[in-house]
Amino acid sequence: MKVAYGKSPVIYPIPIILAGANVGGKPNFETLGDVGLMGISPPLVFISSGKDHYTNIGILENNTYSINFPTTDMLAVTDYCGIVSGRDVDKSKLFEIFYGELKTAPMIKECPVNIECQVVKEFSIQHRQIFVGEVIMTYIDEEHLQEIDGRKVLAEMSQLDPIIYALDNRYYKIGEVIGTGYREGQSYSKND
Amino acid sequence: MKVAYGKSPVIYPIPIILAGANVGGKPNFETLGDVGLMGISPPLVFISSGKDHYTNIGILENNTYSINFPTTDMLAVTDYCGIVSGRDVDKSKLFEIFYGELKTAPMIKECPVNIECQVVKEFSIQHRQIFVGEVIMTYIDEEHLQEIDGRKVLAEMSQLDPIIYALDNRYYKIGEVIGTGYREGQSYSKND
Repeated sequence: MKVAYGKSPVIYPIPIILAGANVGGKPNFETLGDVGLMGISPPLVFISSGKDHYTNIGILENNTYSINFPTTDMLAVTDYCGIVSGRDVDKSKLFEIFYGELKTAPMIKECPVNIECQVVKEFSIQHRQIFVGEVIMTYIDEEHLQEIDGRKVLAEMSQLDPIIYALDNRYYKIGEVIGTGYREGQSYSKND
Repeated sequence: MKVAYGKSPVIYPIPIILAGANVGGKPNFETLGDVGLMGISPPLVFISSGKDHYTNIGILENNTYSINFPTTDMLAVTDYCGIVSGRDVDKSKLFEIFYGELKTAPMIKECPVNIECQVVKEFSIQHRQIFVGEVIMTYIDEEHLQEIDGRKVLAEMSQLDPIIYALDNRYYKIGEVIGTGYREGQSYSKND
């Protein structure tokens, strides 16, 4: 039986990322689950961050941000970056930082995948500020790429070992592979 | 070593959902990974769908849509709904359908969680059309709620058994619980 659960945005699984921005020239990182894919071509992503958050100042300053994917062994520092504000704590000291093409979007070396984004649209709904970003460049640790038919492709997600979240307030690991996109349904029909 | 991987929006994990809309009064469903959480209060979500997709017609018609979370035993039909268009196939026959408060956002009974959304903002970037939705009501199968301290809360994600995706074009299951939000980092400091 279906139960009405209220106006709860129960999206799952939720990716946990560290959003990076330079605030007054200094790197800051905010833990977010309000992140997602908006399209592959053009390559669009977004983050949504409360208007009073410190990171927002830096994003508006440079019109750039980064998305960094921590691994499960970074759980404590990742959770910590969602508890404390850059106004109170210098989070630039928590990680090894590098820059890419944009020069103003700080990225975290310890994270196996980093995406640098140029803000192409910004809007607010009540106290949420949403930054749609076009991907300028994605960086991946070499050991997480595998060569298939002479092409470097992304390793299995278990190797990237992301921190996953849900609105039950628990963190999760990724599980096993169960299929391939645009293949599992090829022979499907209701009468099968 | 970091390798520049191109302008690839490598967000992971990607939730796989069936977006529902009534097109000319008839339910249609589109498989999407371009979905995400934009905020809890107000309860905001979004989907992004190619402008030429059949589902978009219904969303624009009613200014409503639904988000339905299939389980892994629905992998074949879910993948199928991402391969074929509602222009060619009547997808309303694939599922048991119910409606909630909005009356125009068809939801799938077989999915353990369903969210009905009112479009509060719509915009396009090139051929992508993005529909930001305010959650009007969320429905959950009773067996996926557990009572904790007299409050009904969401079950562990392994019970909801979502289909997860990544840009390696593989589908995944969820893994085990590894922690609790806003707790794992409480005692963290760089000197620990």
